[in-house]
Amino acid sequence: MAHLLDAPAAGAAAADWDRRDPREVRRACRSRGYTGYTAGLAPGHVQANLCMLPKDWAEDFLLFCQRNPAPCPLIARSDPGDPRLPTLAEDLDIRTDVPRYHVFRDGAFVEEVTDITSLWRDDLVVFALGCSFSFEEALLDAGLPLRFLERGSVAGVYVTDIDAKPAGRFHGKLAVTMRPFKPVDAIRAIQVTSRFPNVHGAPVHIGDPAAIGVDLAVKYKNVGDGTVEPGELPLFWACGLTPQLAVANAKPPFCITHAPSSMLVTDLRNASLAVL
Amino acid sequence: MAHLLDAPAAGAAAADWDRRDPREVRRACRSRGYTGYTAGLAPGHVQANLCMLPKDWAEDFLLFCQRNPAPCPLIARSDPGDPRLPTLAEDLDIRTDVPRYHVFRDGAFVEEVTDITSLWRDDLVVFALGCSFSFEEALLDAGLPLRFLERGSVAGVYVTDIDAKPAGRFHGKLAVTMRPFKPVDAIRAIQVTSRFPNVHGAPVHIGDPAAIGVDLAVKYKNVGDGTVEPGELPLFWACGLTPQLAVANAKPPFCITHAPSSMLVTDLRNASLAVL
Repeated sequence: MAHLLDAPAAGAAAADWDRRDPREVRRACRSRGYTGYTAGLAPGHVQANLCMLPKDWAEDFLLFCQRNPAPCPLIARSDPGDPRLPTLAEDLDIRTDVPRYHVFRDGAFVEEVTDITSLWRDDLVVFALGCSFSFEEALLDAGLPLRFLERGSVAGVYVTDIDAKPAGRFHGKLAVTMRPFKPVDAIRAIQVTSRFPNVHGAPVHIGDPAAIGVDLAVKYKNVGDGTVEPGELPLFWACGLTPQLAVANAKPPFCITHAPSSMLVTDLRNASLAVL
Repeated sequence: MAHLLDAPAAGAAAADWDRRDPREVRRACRSRGYTGYTAGLAPGHVQANLCMLPKDWAEDFLLFCQRNPAPCPLIARSDPGDPRLPTLAEDLDIRTDVPRYHVFRDGAFVEEVTDITSLWRDDLVVFALGCSFSFEEALLDAGLPLRFLERGSVAGVYVTDIDAKPAGRFHGKLAVTMRPFKPVDAIRAIQVTSRFPNVHGAPVHIGDPAAIGVDLAVKYKNVGDGTVEPGELPLFWACGLTPQLAVANAKPPFCITHAPSSMLVTDLRNASLAVL
């Protein structure tokens, strides 16, 4: 997997715009053809997972998020048909401001696009969910090593045998990401991420992977780094893949998400999400 | 080991005084001959480990506490020769208000007494250190099981191979207490105890005992419960035995401590020690 922090600025020269400014990132997506990864862009700012669903699926999904706050930390929801999320950024237009989108019909992936203006519907409701980039920044700020970044990868992604709490038509297993730490760093990582409940919060599990039905060698779509060195403990955080699995199970007739690792970049500061 | 919470009110009938009132507990020690354990007395109130040293040893010990805040969380220090600790209780007289005391000369235990008025010296400095009773109450309040209590024991006590930071003549190994938890409870226990840095705070280790030089079967003086059930992780907290070991190594000519499990009961509320 490509090193996300070194991901090339696909479609636009990096020098064209200020990669540290979230508004500039959105403008690059909107009008300058930026279609790359977003890790490392606008450091210090919240990036969000996206799920857009027709209005008649929105209440069930909202309830799914409410019942599963660790994997589905909802940070904004649009009004039906409204492509704006002003609490995340004043100028935001969700139809154009994300590098790439995935379109699903009846639960199945059908295409990747870089603009959803032509697909927009006046019954679509946008859900923006916090993502682990925010707490990874807090972990790095605390001096904790994230070795998978050094290895040019992301945290290993796994599907557990734990049922997420169902809501209406949405149901599925809890997905997690794994990050290994030495014991003293594991304790610190639990403290640091406990401050950020809106971006998955504290781990949901520590230690034996089998206790949550996980084999570290069997990653979801082989995504990420599942290495645990001698003397380390694996820590497992709830993951934004969980609602995607629930959507795949529910098979709504229409759904749009961000493309993996190409997130919505917001004006919210990561630090503003800390509860203390 | 006797079940501390069911410890008999040695020397005085339990009905004589209100065991829930910290002032009553101290009065019972002072004038009614109470010489029993203090676990379970004055629930909700801070109990303290004690170390009294001659003035010319006090600065080194203060520095040892400052350098080792996890095992030595200092909550009060008296002026030399002053038997009062008014920040812990207005009426407190350290010479009479503890059930039992241990007296050491040149680092060696010489006797257990129930009153130190005749031993008091005008150069003695009293150090009161927070103890794990406070965070155990917080763990129980959070619904976390402390199985050793159900078994009529205390947390297992161990001496690690980690050096405490030396200060002057005081040096020694870090001592810890072990409490086992299921993974999800372990994460919660780290969160809960992180709120209480003045009573040992978060664990210093989680998982493999050998990584800190501990064999769970080899307890310090065989104190406490070292059982870890399948599916549990051992969590290790810094322990007030650490300064006692350092005092034994330093061999001051004179030292008085509380007797094990017979602590100073203060008017401070456990909840008042929480940092958040």
